[in-house]
Amino acid sequence: MKLTPRLKEILPDDRVSTQPDQLEAVSKDESTLPPVIPKAVVWCIDRNEIVEVVRLCCNTGIPITTRGAGSALEGSTIPHAGGIVLDLSRMTRIVDFWPEDLQVEVEPGIIYDHLNDHLKNEGLFFPPSPGGSGDIATVGGMVSTNASGIYSVKYGGTREYILALEIVTGTGEIVKLGNRAVKRSSGYNLVELICGSEGTLGIITSITLKLAGIPEDRLKTAYKFPDEKAAAQAVSEMRRYGLDIAAIEFLDRRLMTALNKLKEYGLEEVPALFLEFHGPGAVLDSNSELAGDICTEHGASPLRLAEGQNPWEVRHWATDAVKHFKPGYTILRNDVAFPISSLPEMVEYCHHLGDENGITMFTFGHVGLGLLHALMLARPDNADEWRTAQEINRKIIEKTLSLGGTISGEHGIGLGHKDQFMREHGPAVDLMRRIKRQFDPKGILNPGKIFD
Amino acid sequence: MKLTPRLKEILPDDRVSTQPDQLEAVSKDESTLPPVIPKAVVWCIDRNEIVEVVRLCCNTGIPITTRGAGSALEGSTIPHAGGIVLDLSRMTRIVDFWPEDLQVEVEPGIIYDHLNDHLKNEGLFFPPSPGGSGDIATVGGMVSTNASGIYSVKYGGTREYILALEIVTGTGEIVKLGNRAVKRSSGYNLVELICGSEGTLGIITSITLKLAGIPEDRLKTAYKFPDEKAAAQAVSEMRRYGLDIAAIEFLDRRLMTALNKLKEYGLEEVPALFLEFHGPGAVLDSNSELAGDICTEHGASPLRLAEGQNPWEVRHWATDAVKHFKPGYTILRNDVAFPISSLPEMVEYCHHLGDENGITMFTFGHVGLGLLHALMLARPDNADEWRTAQEINRKIIEKTLSLGGTISGEHGIGLGHKDQFMREHGPAVDLMRRIKRQFDPKGILNPGKIFD
Repeated sequence: MKLTPRLKEILPDDRVSTQPDQLEAVSKDESTLPPVIPKAVVWCIDRNEIVEVVRLCCNTGIPITTRGAGSALEGSTIPHAGGIVLDLSRMTRIVDFWPEDLQVEVEPGIIYDHLNDHLKNEGLFFPPSPGGSGDIATVGGMVSTNASGIYSVKYGGTREYILALEIVTGTGEIVKLGNRAVKRSSGYNLVELICGSEGTLGIITSITLKLAGIPEDRLKTAYKFPDEKAAAQAVSEMRRYGLDIAAIEFLDRRLMTALNKLKEYGLEEVPALFLEFHGPGAVLDSNSELAGDICTEHGASPLRLAEGQNPWEVRHWATDAVKHFKPGYTILRNDVAFPISSLPEMVEYCHHLGDENGITMFTFGHVGLGLLHALMLARPDNADEWRTAQEINRKIIEKTLSLGGTISGEHGIGLGHKDQFMREHGPAVDLMRRIKRQFDPKGILNPGKIFD
Repeated sequence: MKLTPRLKEILPDDRVSTQPDQLEAVSKDESTLPPVIPKAVVWCIDRNEIVEVVRLCCNTGIPITTRGAGSALEGSTIPHAGGIVLDLSRMTRIVDFWPEDLQVEVEPGIIYDHLNDHLKNEGLFFPPSPGGSGDIATVGGMVSTNASGIYSVKYGGTREYILALEIVTGTGEIVKLGNRAVKRSSGYNLVELICGSEGTLGIITSITLKLAGIPEDRLKTAYKFPDEKAAAQAVSEMRRYGLDIAAIEFLDRRLMTALNKLKEYGLEEVPALFLEFHGPGAVLDSNSELAGDICTEHGASPLRLAEGQNPWEVRHWATDAVKHFKPGYTILRNDVAFPISSLPEMVEYCHHLGDENGITMFTFGHVGLGLLHALMLARPDNADEWRTAQEINRKIIEKTLSLGGTISGEHGIGLGHKDQFMREHGPAVDLMRRIKRQFDPKGILNPGKIFD
């Protein structure tokens, strides 16, 4: 019997599709990697349906690529090995909410912003805002990639907020991991093992999250620095001083050029740090004053816009400034993270590689956590240029690893970084492979992602 | 050839011992569990020696119990299955120190307080202070049990600070896990898997830690509450308000009685919360005022000692007050953690069980994290009484699990909580067993701990 009729024995007809437009829609993500058309796409709405689908696929050896919003940046949700796409975007319920415990249980398909809309009635929020994609990213996807965002400096990444998960393993077994205790020393931390595993160990059917109180007040400041070294030293000192800072964002001097081009700000073309403080008014005044003192001691002065607008507007337009800098060019990005003291060296290395090879290069990131994105502009239809940009990307990753850093600070490995994964982890990859087999002995869960 | 001569082929004679006094010293930990005398104790001083010892034991099927200071509270370091004890207390080096990155690499045997003595020259510290045992606990032991302490409310537990580990697996393979990037989305988080695994997955040979800046200032306050419910609500609200509080400690009304007996404080016998704030002066003044307002709104008033001493002195003497409350009695403790809203119910449940069965019962803990220790007084030589206390302990754990909590908030499972471990984790235990086999196929690393 063919696959589709068997899927339709499990699910209503309208939740199994082989229509070309629907298959095409789930064949890709937000990366520049080539799409792969799956055999079918199914929408499950509860754990029991997922168990049935997994059992069918396990018995017949059909790969399953689980998908939330498809906003991944490294191909994690491309159905690389064919098979079916399991779309969880209809599992959007808030299962339980315990405001007095600062905890909520949700289904994996709930969208980040929708969850926070609900939580704000109780003065709470789920902090690891996934950059500009909070309006589309699902919480399940955030768990699968250990997503982070600008506020992760203060609040941490997704992993810091997961108390419990329910998963369906590759053999169709339902397993609950963790519980509602905020601090635990009880056996192996399998919750953490699932977080960041990009759908290769299990299909997440329920997520219990820790929450934070919405800050009473927010304060945003920005400083321009004489050079990247001064900016990096200021970041290190702010952290060392134990200052409570919600966001520490960096833009390099070249982004300032691009911003001047896009918005005619007339900014001095030097690197800048953007700081945000959360808390009750008096607390954030004290913190921001101390942070300002540290920046000033490193040669910085406040970044001011001519019109007296909020200087964070500059940060807001950064990605657009890169997008519009050279019309017809595609952005090639990476996602490295390293110890903060290497920031000046890394920025200079990226600029040098770009200049040497005639590739326009920008760097920015959540440097409070040592995250830096290098953005290159190249044309996919210019084979030499595209290859050169990819070669530069590879060198930046090599440099990062030599500094004790990681290939991926927040986007995940997916397909895009598989080649370098072994270089980062060495013999540990073999342990990961063996662990995968314990969750997914037939190798049907998102095969070919992270490692082969 | 016998075991000891073969160990002496690997290690100098003076680092292999079968002397009765030395075997007796490593036969136990700080729990009330019965000691087990091992065949031999060895002291390794580098990874290569450990590899050789593990290979020998792997080939001959001899169990290895790794030991730091032996300050475990649940039998994690008792050589339960015989074999050898591998003592790492001589591996105390600081391997590397990057103050500008707030990072340090250490060997596992370094003592918590010694590490912090070294770090303070650079204004840094490793925050998860392991209660009153910082002067003996090793950092390796803290990693193995995911230890925490009073400052974990602000700073988190040990797991939040581990960037990288080097381990020797049960087959003698050296594997590096993690790296120096503070935020990562790069494959399975094996660092987190080792943290809390109590020596059952690998022998830790190196630990790279994230650090924090020593707070510029500290402020300690204390409040007495009309009842446990009011105290719990105040804790929940302080967390929700996003206040930056370093420590939130709870003592029940019975501990106040014991403290009055020990120190003649003349305290009102009602529950109390002890708060500590870290940060620059202005920041902690704002935070402590807001926390004080919240406590007052819940009927609290400042706890004052007659002599005008720091009220935190009361907290300091809590364990001694229990120890001396009934001379000749032994303390039986547990280590549960649960959602904070259950604090009043749990305290009342513990008191009720104690009263009903004639067992003296105290409760206290790091309630900012939902941790509560119930301490019972019983005599091991009074079989009925000891059994009753253990039965109460079992009931408290059952109640905790029914509230979505955990058996162990900070001490680990070891031998002491193995019986209830399956109750907490269910089918996940089978996954843990299968994962252990990938690291330790012969089952020689601390066998019989956490689960069978």
